[in-house]
Amino acid sequence: MPDAVELIRVKRDGGQLSDADIRWLIRGYTGGDIADEQISALLMAIYFRGLDAAELRAWTDAMISSGERLNLAGLTAPTVDKHSTGGVGDKVSLILAPLVAACGAAVPQLSGRGLGHTGGTLDKLEAIPGWRASLPPAEMTAILRRLGCVICAAGPGLAPADRRLYALRDVTGTVESIPLIASSIMSKKIAEGTGALVLDVKVGSGAFMRELADARLLARTMVTLGEEHGVRTSALLTRMDTPLGRAVGNAVEVEESVATLAGQGPPDLAEVVLALAAEMLRLAGLDGDPAAALADGSALARYRDMIAAQGGDPDAPLPVARHTRVVPAPATGWLTRLDAHGVGHAAWRLGAGRARKEDPVSPSAGLLCLAKEGDWVEQEQPLLELRADEESRFDAALAALGDAIEVGPERPAQTAPVIDRIGM
Amino acid sequence: MPDAVELIRVKRDGGQLSDADIRWLIRGYTGGDIADEQISALLMAIYFRGLDAAELRAWTDAMISSGERLNLAGLTAPTVDKHSTGGVGDKVSLILAPLVAACGAAVPQLSGRGLGHTGGTLDKLEAIPGWRASLPPAEMTAILRRLGCVICAAGPGLAPADRRLYALRDVTGTVESIPLIASSIMSKKIAEGTGALVLDVKVGSGAFMRELADARLLARTMVTLGEEHGVRTSALLTRMDTPLGRAVGNAVEVEESVATLAGQGPPDLAEVVLALAAEMLRLAGLDGDPAAALADGSALARYRDMIAAQGGDPDAPLPVARHTRVVPAPATGWLTRLDAHGVGHAAWRLGAGRARKEDPVSPSAGLLCLAKEGDWVEQEQPLLELRADEESRFDAALAALGDAIEVGPERPAQTAPVIDRIGM
Repeated sequence: MPDAVELIRVKRDGGQLSDADIRWLIRGYTGGDIADEQISALLMAIYFRGLDAAELRAWTDAMISSGERLNLAGLTAPTVDKHSTGGVGDKVSLILAPLVAACGAAVPQLSGRGLGHTGGTLDKLEAIPGWRASLPPAEMTAILRRLGCVICAAGPGLAPADRRLYALRDVTGTVESIPLIASSIMSKKIAEGTGALVLDVKVGSGAFMRELADARLLARTMVTLGEEHGVRTSALLTRMDTPLGRAVGNAVEVEESVATLAGQGPPDLAEVVLALAAEMLRLAGLDGDPAAALADGSALARYRDMIAAQGGDPDAPLPVARHTRVVPAPATGWLTRLDAHGVGHAAWRLGAGRARKEDPVSPSAGLLCLAKEGDWVEQEQPLLELRADEESRFDAALAALGDAIEVGPERPAQTAPVIDRIGM
Repeated sequence: MPDAVELIRVKRDGGQLSDADIRWLIRGYTGGDIADEQISALLMAIYFRGLDAAELRAWTDAMISSGERLNLAGLTAPTVDKHSTGGVGDKVSLILAPLVAACGAAVPQLSGRGLGHTGGTLDKLEAIPGWRASLPPAEMTAILRRLGCVICAAGPGLAPADRRLYALRDVTGTVESIPLIASSIMSKKIAEGTGALVLDVKVGSGAFMRELADARLLARTMVTLGEEHGVRTSALLTRMDTPLGRAVGNAVEVEESVATLAGQGPPDLAEVVLALAAEMLRLAGLDGDPAAALADGSALARYRDMIAAQGGDPDAPLPVARHTRVVPAPATGWLTRLDAHGVGHAAWRLGAGRARKEDPVSPSAGLLCLAKEGDWVEQEQPLLELRADEESRFDAALAALGDAIEVGPERPAQTAPVIDRIGM
């Protein structure tokens, strides 16, 4: 029988934990036999020492085995899901699920809520009056079978060990570890039962991974885990130095998603959506044309059906913030910087995000980027429109913006939003 | 107001915690406002990142401030204490306190119990029928004033934060950190109120510090902490590759201590005792001659008075183990190795030590080294005499010995037990 202190020491000193050790640790923790303080010390040791490929596989297996594994084999359409590591203005899931469904795939999108300065898909959709995030498994499968897409909360039965571990990591400064991030994401996606998975690994100031090398390592780690568990997996590395699209918040992002589904979205957002859709269809073995599905209205129709199936009214007006404030351009010139980190934190301070998982979010708070990086702007021209329910929030939001805005004499180089693809 | 997660991250990422941060953390932890799992993650981050001089000083201050600080200023004799980082057969405190008292100093030796393969001073003395480790503060001071020495348990009021932190470190694999060891030892010794302190930092296979460089760093760290808090402090680095003296256990070490006080101890033990005694007297500003105090019986007389003052009968027979077993020499030649780690673990398995702090120890279990490193031995000659209350313990003890014994054709080089001195 292993000993928790001894196993913590092994990892602390750079040794390797066996499959049996890892199973024992995860089972002991979920069963209440190993204390929080022991696992948090182990997590910090993993932060410093990492997990090798065999340890990571065993760790992920143990998290999957802690709960149920959905069986989507009964669907006729091939299943493919997408996961984003989170960014500012990242409303891609809202658009992608119905778009890829309109092209013939089945997209079982089990999503989460936001924490910190990046938004959560469920928080955004909950801005729609009547829409329900929680579905019983049978209802979820029925909607998926009928419409080819569903976006809902992952039930408590999927990888419950990850749920407990994530909560512990959140309060112990051990979130930012590539193997722990990879196993947390992949254990839920593998347990969800999807046949294929495309990862959108964001890199830049507004992303979890600020360095390209880290993002690449995380992408490769997750792709390997997916393949090892029989899920066809690939990853796109996409830029997150500046917000994706123009809207950052909840209701505002729903509006921008609908516009994008109608073929009228911002070009950077449309480009990322189409690249991810093509990748999903490729992994699913389908020939659909996502650009056509945006142009002919079939993706938008699918979106409206999906919202309605979960109690939402796609025609209902979305909540509007009581107060707005404009941030003007500080000078005339090229907008050389509209930093995702600052903008994301400003939206968070406006009420669009939460600091702790039990906090509520405001559906109407957020902001619009009235200019984008690379635009020519005149001094005093409105750059951002901030929205909040309480005027008192604007000061904190402006402070959070910090040096996010820079106007200069030289036109910045244009950068493509998709950096690279990793995987099969 | 600081945030625990943010402070964990600062340390994790190699940053510096301010004095106020550290005070807030230690107060929050002892007050129950900061959870075990957060502090254990912080401790593991400290294991990897260390504490710089300012952080270490603040950490130690916070632990001292968590409890009371004894005031020994009313004594006429200068106070001087000694602390050992722990070794195998390390019964030095039992001899040193009465010896230095016989030379004119006051030795307020607040001691602990053993954990793992190194013994604890209180466990050893408790082998003496009637002897009490716990004394009310007034009684402790009275004995110290009358006899110039007292060896007793540190009360719960001394550095209570250290008590909680140590218990947490013990179960989370975060004991082996030089700044955490240094602050734990020094906070208790500073709170104890001694005017001077000599540290016996053991180095070698049977010690906490296996490498000389680590031992040197620990010694320097503790000497600096002592000086910063107005305690005249120095450290001797002493060898712990082989047991100190011949006896390892509880009653057997009391017997060897009495023999040493009578001038009939093993030479290596006497050498360490005299070196530490000279250092203590030097720091206390006294001229006494410890070798004379051993030779003229005054140290032994002081020991007998000290034992009697705490309810012990210095003439009572000590408990004797029911079973003995001899370990013979495997060959004829020079005893080139009698490893402290293996011998210490064997004594532990025999029942002399405890695995968890709530375990009892056997007063009679232990072993005698019938030969020492550097002796010529004949094949089958008895090398060790193991003692246990249950015969079933011998197999585990023999297994724990492992490769602790080596006999070879070449006479090993002689090494002095005292390696170096650090401090003022």
